[in-house]
Amino acid sequence: MENNIKNTKLVMSQVMMPHQANVAGNIHGGEIMKFMDSAAYALARKYAKSNVVTARVDELEFHLPIFVGELVTCTAKIAFAGRSSMEVGVTVEVEDLEQNSPPQKALSAYFTMVALDKKGRPKLVPKLILNTEEEKALFEEGKKRHASYKLKKQKSK
Amino acid sequence: MENNIKNTKLVMSQVMMPHQANVAGNIHGGEIMKFMDSAAYALARKYAKSNVVTARVDELEFHLPIFVGELVTCTAKIAFAGRSSMEVGVTVEVEDLEQNSPPQKALSAYFTMVALDKKGRPKLVPKLILNTEEEKALFEEGKKRHASYKLKKQKSK
Amino acid sequence: MENNIKNTKLVMSQVMMPHQANVAGNIHGGEIMKFMDSAAYALARKYAKSNVVTARVDELEFHLPIFVGELVTCTAKIAFAGRSSMEVGVTVEVEDLEQNSPPQKALSAYFTMVALDKKGRPKLVPKLILNTEEEKALFEEGKKRHASYKLKKQKSK
Amino acid sequence: MENNIKNTKLVMSQVMMPHQANVAGNIHGGEIMKFMDSAAYALARKYAKSNVVTARVDELEFHLPIFVGELVTCTAKIAFAGRSSMEVGVTVEVEDLEQNSPPQKALSAYFTMVALDKKGRPKLVPKLILNTEEEKALFEEGKKRHASYKLKKQKSK
Amino acid sequence: MENNIKNTKLVMSQVMMPHQANVAGNIHGGEIMKFMDSAAYALARKYAKSNVVTARVDELEFHLPIFVGELVTCTAKIAFAGRSSMEVGVTVEVEDLEQNSPPQKALSAYFTMVALDKKGRPKLVPKLILNTEEEKALFEEGKKRHASYKLKKQKSK
Amino acid sequence: MENNIKNTKLVMSQVMMPHQANVAGNIHGGEIMKFMDSAAYALARKYAKSNVVTARVDELEFHLPIFVGELVTCTAKIAFAGRSSMEVGVTVEVEDLEQNSPPQKALSAYFTMVALDKKGRPKLVPKLILNTEEEKALFEEGKKRHASYKLKKQKSK
Repeated sequence: MENNIKNTKLVMSQVMMPHQANVAGNIHGGEIMKFMDSAAYALARKYAKSNVVTARVDELEFHLPIFVGELVTCTAKIAFAGRSSMEVGVTVEVEDLEQNSPPQKALSAYFTMVALDKKGRPKLVPKLILNTEEEKALFEEGKKRHASYKLKKQKSK
Repeated sequence: MENNIKNTKLVMSQVMMPHQANVAGNIHGGEIMKFMDSAAYALARKYAKSNVVTARVDELEFHLPIFVGELVTCTAKIAFAGRSSMEVGVTVEVEDLEQNSPPQKALSAYFTMVALDKKGRPKLVPKLILNTEEEKALFEEGKKRHASYKLKKQKSK
Repeated sequence: MENNIKNTKLVMSQVMMPHQANVAGNIHGGEIMKFMDSAAYALARKYAKSNVVTARVDELEFHLPIFVGELVTCTAKIAFAGRSSMEVGVTVEVEDLEQNSPPQKALSAYFTMVALDKKGRPKLVPKLILNTEEEKALFEEGKKRHASYKLKKQKSK
Repeated sequence: MENNIKNTKLVMSQVMMPHQANVAGNIHGGEIMKFMDSAAYALARKYAKSNVVTARVDELEFHLPIFVGELVTCTAKIAFAGRSSMEVGVTVEVEDLEQNSPPQKALSAYFTMVALDKKGRPKLVPKLILNTEEEKALFEEGKKRHASYKLKKQKSK
Repeated sequence: MENNIKNTKLVMSQVMMPHQANVAGNIHGGEIMKFMDSAAYALARKYAKSNVVTARVDELEFHLPIFVGELVTCTAKIAFAGRSSMEVGVTVEVEDLEQNSPPQKALSAYFTMVALDKKGRPKLVPKLILNTEEEKALFEEGKKRHASYKLKKQKSK
Repeated sequence: MENNIKNTKLVMSQVMMPHQANVAGNIHGGEIMKFMDSAAYALARKYAKSNVVTARVDELEFHLPIFVGELVTCTAKIAFAGRSSMEVGVTVEVEDLEQNSPPQKALSAYFTMVALDKKGRPKLVPKLILNTEEEKALFEEGKKRHASYKLKKQKSK
């Protein structure tokens, strides 16, 4: 049960609309979080070939204000895959379409998604094939994070 | 420049709708994050009497699946107030309206909101009045978190 | 078949958004009516532990204009319960979050909701337990309104 | 300042969507109220040639359940025009598009709309030209309702 | 299997909202296309008494800019009916409600809709009854377009 | 006034939601048209560095049904640029995320967008730099289409 490289990355983008902003035109943080989650959701479904739910989200820090009319692009990558959970790294870039400047990184975070079968029980996901040194390093980091969450969870019981 | 107790808490609730869920009826994590952010936004505006933006969100962990038709209630409280930033604790409770069970806690997180003046520059917020020992303890915790983020930010420059 | 006090009241609130307003920033009356209906719907479901539909709405009078950015809070209370119908009183309060003024009452109305079973037929609802003199008075008023609607309905046949 | 007949009637229709319904497929009463209000709003703007707000809505009674996929048509007519207020009669008809049955009347109500100038102050509206006996009768009824609301309002002060 | 005249025409209208426009207040072409498609969808369902999908849309040309607050009216008519496909002509008129000018034609196009049975297979639709010379001429034009699309499709295989 | 290659292509994608579909789960053609238009709008703004509006859309033919839950990707490319108008080719690909099949082409069309200055008047756009033979061929085709529309427009006056 393996999965080829094409199922481990997904890019989504949208132009920010007035109903996603406050009166001063700043896009609400919650709208960006929702968009990141939908990219993680789509990629995890594609990787696991099943329904998935969000189990955890990393600390998020907004480095840049985002405004109405800007193009926001979410790039999602599978960083780590356990038995039924996947860690998806989501990076957000922002681009003012009417200016000649390149897209700028606004924030990034890891989303932990869990694959579910038709009855809502956790379901095995494919093993992650690691092709580059960078992927291997990301996987090892993800593995450590995963282990530390599990530990925290057991302690809080 | 002080602020009375009524401006430090706010409760919002809504019934979850089908367009907020995946095909299996699980509400998307991103919808819950968006709702928590809107509660933090409303309370921070009320506390600061100005426009505000989201600067940071804590690690989030979803303890319970949330389904279409359930009532979700966000309780937001100001935990800490610095010069222009406020830390808002947001707790999410979920209730199956058609069952005789009490609401259950689904998750909680701290949102750091920054007050902005009309020109988009950081703006002073009122001092937080602490009435109970619990409030004082929360404030001290928030102060420590705030200091550690600031430190992290300086290091990453 | 009785129902304890916690099932007879429900509070919902939301910040009004630009897409709910006309060009001058006044929130459409229809948006407020929809919000009141959703509070009545949620509370009646919680009281009846079943699906419910709206059968009647009282005359509505808007005492205050409501603007984009304001916090609107609907407080719903079960005033009267018949065999399968419930009368829900819904009060709307409005608060300008960036001003130091308390919430103001904008309007109130009674919504008659009918409980339905899985096949869409009327379903018995719990008896309403009346604890205070005020609740007893509200119940008696509701009972009279209910009787007069029934009478009107028979006449119009 | 008169207004010809074409400005006194307006028809709007839409197919009901799943996100406007409860889990059993019944369209929420609040969605229908919102739609009626938007028809009254559009017609009153057309009649007054200015911004308008909703001031009052009649008692509403839902005679028929309305389901997802049905075509709902609101017919709005100016029944009465005072100095700055207009009474708009709104009738709702429902049609199951996939059946061979004619549209059925689901409910009707009067909406009182007030014309506002650019500064938000009440603004004179055109005199209503009455061409038929039916229009004259409706106008006289509307005039009586208008007088009785005004009286009620003064008493409640 | 015939169909009377009332099933061959349908009018829908809505007031354009800010979230359907760009920052300058121009309604997006895509919003108008979506609205035209929903009118064609509703009429084709009404004519075929079954589910339908969009198969083709004509070249579209926007003759007039459309702005927030204007009333847009789509008039849909069945022009041609084949075995399982229908050609629906959709005309869009725009009216500035606060001005004394009549509605203006903004654009028109033909939508080819296909009737589907419960299993998603093409389904026979009623024969179109032609009452006037104009209807007969439209039908003949539609028949020619239909034949030329079929030819084009076969060639591209 | 030239424009480099990075401003001539843009990719947008989204997962199709239940509220975009009919009762059988088929995504409405109008939703796809709206999405294609928003990709053309974003790219034309990026290319022209100004506000833009949709002036024309090609004949559209839906080759594949699109269902709820599928990932739809719009790839927009500038094919031709005139004085103030741009022709944007938009290709739509569809992917069933839970299956192991590659994305499939669902349809494609040309959108003609016009750049507008702050006062709503047509505005010059950058010259299109053509790097490959394929780009040159597309440009020549676009130029011919553009000329034939202009001719048609003059005749219809």
